[in-house]
Amino acid sequence: MGELRVTRTNLSDGRELLYFDEPGTPERTASDFRDLARVQTESWMRRDPLTGDWAIYAAHRQNRTFLPPANEDPLAPTRLGQHPSEIPEDDYQITVFENRFPSLSMHLGFAEGHDPYVGGNELFHRAPALGRCEVVCFTPDADGSFKDLPLARKRALIDVWAQRTEELEAIDDVALVFPFENRGEEIGVTLHHPHGQIYSYPFVPPRAAAIAKQARTHRSSRSTSLFDEIIAAELHAGDRVIADTPHFLVFTPAAAKWPLEIMVMAKRAVPSFPHLTSEERDDLAAILDSLFRAVDMFFEGVERTPYIAAWNQAPAKSPDDGRLHLQLFSLMRSPGRMKYLAGSESGMGVWVSDTTPESVASKMRQLYVPD
Amino acid sequence: MGELRVTRTNLSDGRELLYFDEPGTPERTASDFRDLARVQTESWMRRDPLTGDWAIYAAHRQNRTFLPPANEDPLAPTRLGQHPSEIPEDDYQITVFENRFPSLSMHLGFAEGHDPYVGGNELFHRAPALGRCEVVCFTPDADGSFKDLPLARKRALIDVWAQRTEELEAIDDVALVFPFENRGEEIGVTLHHPHGQIYSYPFVPPRAAAIAKQARTHRSSRSTSLFDEIIAAELHAGDRVIADTPHFLVFTPAAAKWPLEIMVMAKRAVPSFPHLTSEERDDLAAILDSLFRAVDMFFEGVERTPYIAAWNQAPAKSPDDGRLHLQLFSLMRSPGRMKYLAGSESGMGVWVSDTTPESVASKMRQLYVPD
Repeated sequence: MGELRVTRTNLSDGRELLYFDEPGTPERTASDFRDLARVQTESWMRRDPLTGDWAIYAAHRQNRTFLPPANEDPLAPTRLGQHPSEIPEDDYQITVFENRFPSLSMHLGFAEGHDPYVGGNELFHRAPALGRCEVVCFTPDADGSFKDLPLARKRALIDVWAQRTEELEAIDDVALVFPFENRGEEIGVTLHHPHGQIYSYPFVPPRAAAIAKQARTHRSSRSTSLFDEIIAAELHAGDRVIADTPHFLVFTPAAAKWPLEIMVMAKRAVPSFPHLTSEERDDLAAILDSLFRAVDMFFEGVERTPYIAAWNQAPAKSPDDGRLHLQLFSLMRSPGRMKYLAGSESGMGVWVSDTTPESVASKMRQLYVPD
Repeated sequence: MGELRVTRTNLSDGRELLYFDEPGTPERTASDFRDLARVQTESWMRRDPLTGDWAIYAAHRQNRTFLPPANEDPLAPTRLGQHPSEIPEDDYQITVFENRFPSLSMHLGFAEGHDPYVGGNELFHRAPALGRCEVVCFTPDADGSFKDLPLARKRALIDVWAQRTEELEAIDDVALVFPFENRGEEIGVTLHHPHGQIYSYPFVPPRAAAIAKQARTHRSSRSTSLFDEIIAAELHAGDRVIADTPHFLVFTPAAAKWPLEIMVMAKRAVPSFPHLTSEERDDLAAILDSLFRAVDMFFEGVERTPYIAAWNQAPAKSPDDGRLHLQLFSLMRSPGRMKYLAGSESGMGVWVSDTTPESVASKMRQLYVPD
C-alpha cells in the first residue's frame, strides 16, 4: 500500500477539510458553494472546585444538526442535484474536517485578555475551551459501518489517525488527542451516517490523568512499565485473552466496568498512533477487521451493537505516561436492554457490573475469527 | 414532631427490615410468610490497575426484578388477598430493608480466606464486595413520588437517613454511606414504585475521594474550609443562587456538568445527616419540599422530571474531608431529549454541556417557591 495523498481545502465558512486518498485517485478540486456563515463558537471550560475536574460549556451546540432526513445527510458526498453536504466532492475515501458545532475550537474571539475566573472569583477557574473537534468520515455510504470497510480502508484510517495526531499534538494548546467513534442511536448518536471524531483537549482528561498517575507510581515503585506488566499478566492468566498477535494483545481487562468491553493494547511502548511502524499498523488493521465483526455478533438479534470505540493515547507532553490502546465498549447488557448510569455510577463514580470479564472474553473468543 | 419509632424485623430469607413510624402508629407485627430462599450473593470488587478505580461485579443481579406488573409490586404493603410483597405490613410510613439483589453485602460466603488477587496476580487486586445495599420506601402509593410527600414525611425521611447513616457507619468495613434516589424509566429505573436506596461502600468512591483531596489541599494551602469558601463565593456571585436559608444554600454550582443540576449544601461544617440539628432538619425539609416541586416544573410538558438525587456525605473515617450536600441532577436536556454520555464523557471523563449554570439557576429561581 502506498502512502495516502492528502488534499487540503477549506469549507465556505473557513473550516479546514482534508481528503485522504489512495495514490492514483483523481484530484480533489471541488469547492464548497454553500456560503455558510461561521458558527459563533463560545466554548468555555470551568474547573469544579469540589472535584478539580474541568467541564466544557458549549451553548451553541444546542442548535446542532439532529437526525437529519436522508436527503440532507451532511456527511454524504455532494452529488449532482443533491443537497450540498459538508464534503464538496462527489466521492471520497476518507475525509476529516472541523466540526461545525465544536465543543473545543481554536477560533474563539474571547481567547485573549479574558477574566481567568468566573465572575472574578478565584475559586472558579475558567478558560477558553481551546482545542479542536474533527469529524472523520470513512465511507460515503450512509448505511455503511466501520466493520464493513475493506481491510485496506481500515489500514488507511490508522494512517489518518496517525497523521491527525501528529498535526494536532503540534498545536501548543493541545494536551491530548482522542480519536473515537460513537455508534448507535442507543447512545445518542445525532447523525446516522457512520463517522468518527477526534477531540483535541487543552488539558489531560480525567481518564488519561488517572492512567498517567498509575503509570508513574508503578514506574517509581517497581522500575517497570505498568503497561508491560498488564500485558504480561493478561497473557499469563489467559482467560481474558481474545487474541494475541505479534504486536497487540486483544483482551477483556481484569477490571472491565462496561457490560461489553474489549481492549486492544500495543505490546511495545507505543504512546500514540504516529509511533506505530507500518508492520504494526498492518497487524492492527487485521485485528480491527476481526474484532468489529465479532462485536456485531455478540448480541443475538442485534445487527449493530451500539458502541463507543475510544482510542486512548498518551498525553502529548508526557509520552511515557500512556500506551496506545483501544477501549471498545458497549452499554448494551442484553439484546434491547441498555445499562444506565444511575446513582452509583453517575453520582459516586462506582461502576456495578452484572457480568464478569472472563465470561465476556469467553464469548468473544468464540466469535473472533482472525483474518 | 416526636421521635420516630423504629421496629426491627426480618424477612423470611433473613434480610433485615425496619419500619419508621410516627409516635402513636399501631404496632408493626406482621410476618413475612413467603418462605423466600436467600439469594446467593456473589459480589466481588476488582481494582483496575490502569486507573486505580474499584468496580463491583454482581452477576446475581442479572436476575433481579425488572418492571414487574402492578399486582406484583414488591414495594407495596401486603394487603389481604394481594400478592405478598417485601413489606409484610398492610400499611407503612417509611421502611428500609436490605436489597434482595444487592451489589454490596455483608453476607458473602467467601469473605474469609479468599485470594486477594484475581488469578493470583498481584496486579489485579480483588476483594469481597462487603457493604450493604438498602431500599428506602417512603410511600405505600406506587404512583406517588418524593415530591408529593407531605412535609412531615420528608422531615421524617431526613431522620431516617440520619439513623441509617449512623448505624451503617458503625460497621467496620463501611467507608462511606450514600443515600440516593433514581427516578424515571429514562434513567433505567427497574421498579415503578418510588423508592430511595442507600449504598454503603467499603472504599471511598471516586467522587468522594476527589472532593476529599480538594478539601485537604485547600485546607493545607489556605487554612480555610473549601466548603465554606464555595458557599461564600456562590453567595457573593449570586447569579447561581436559587435559595438562601438560615442553614443551607441552594444553587447551581459554577462548574455544574449535568443539563440540570442543583446543589443543596449545609452552611455549617456538617459531614453527614446524623450531625444535623433538629432545626437544620426542619430547614432542609422545607427546602426539599420547594425544590422537588420546582424540578418537576422545569421541562414543559414533562410531568415527572427524571433525576438522580445524590446525597453526598463525608467519608465515615474522615469527616473533615466532606460536607453534607445534595447533588440533584437530571440527564434530560429538553422535553423528551436525554443527554447521553458518549465518547468524551464515558471514554475520557470530560463532560460537555450545552447550557450554562447561570441559565439553569435563573430558570430554577422562577420556579422555586419557598414553603
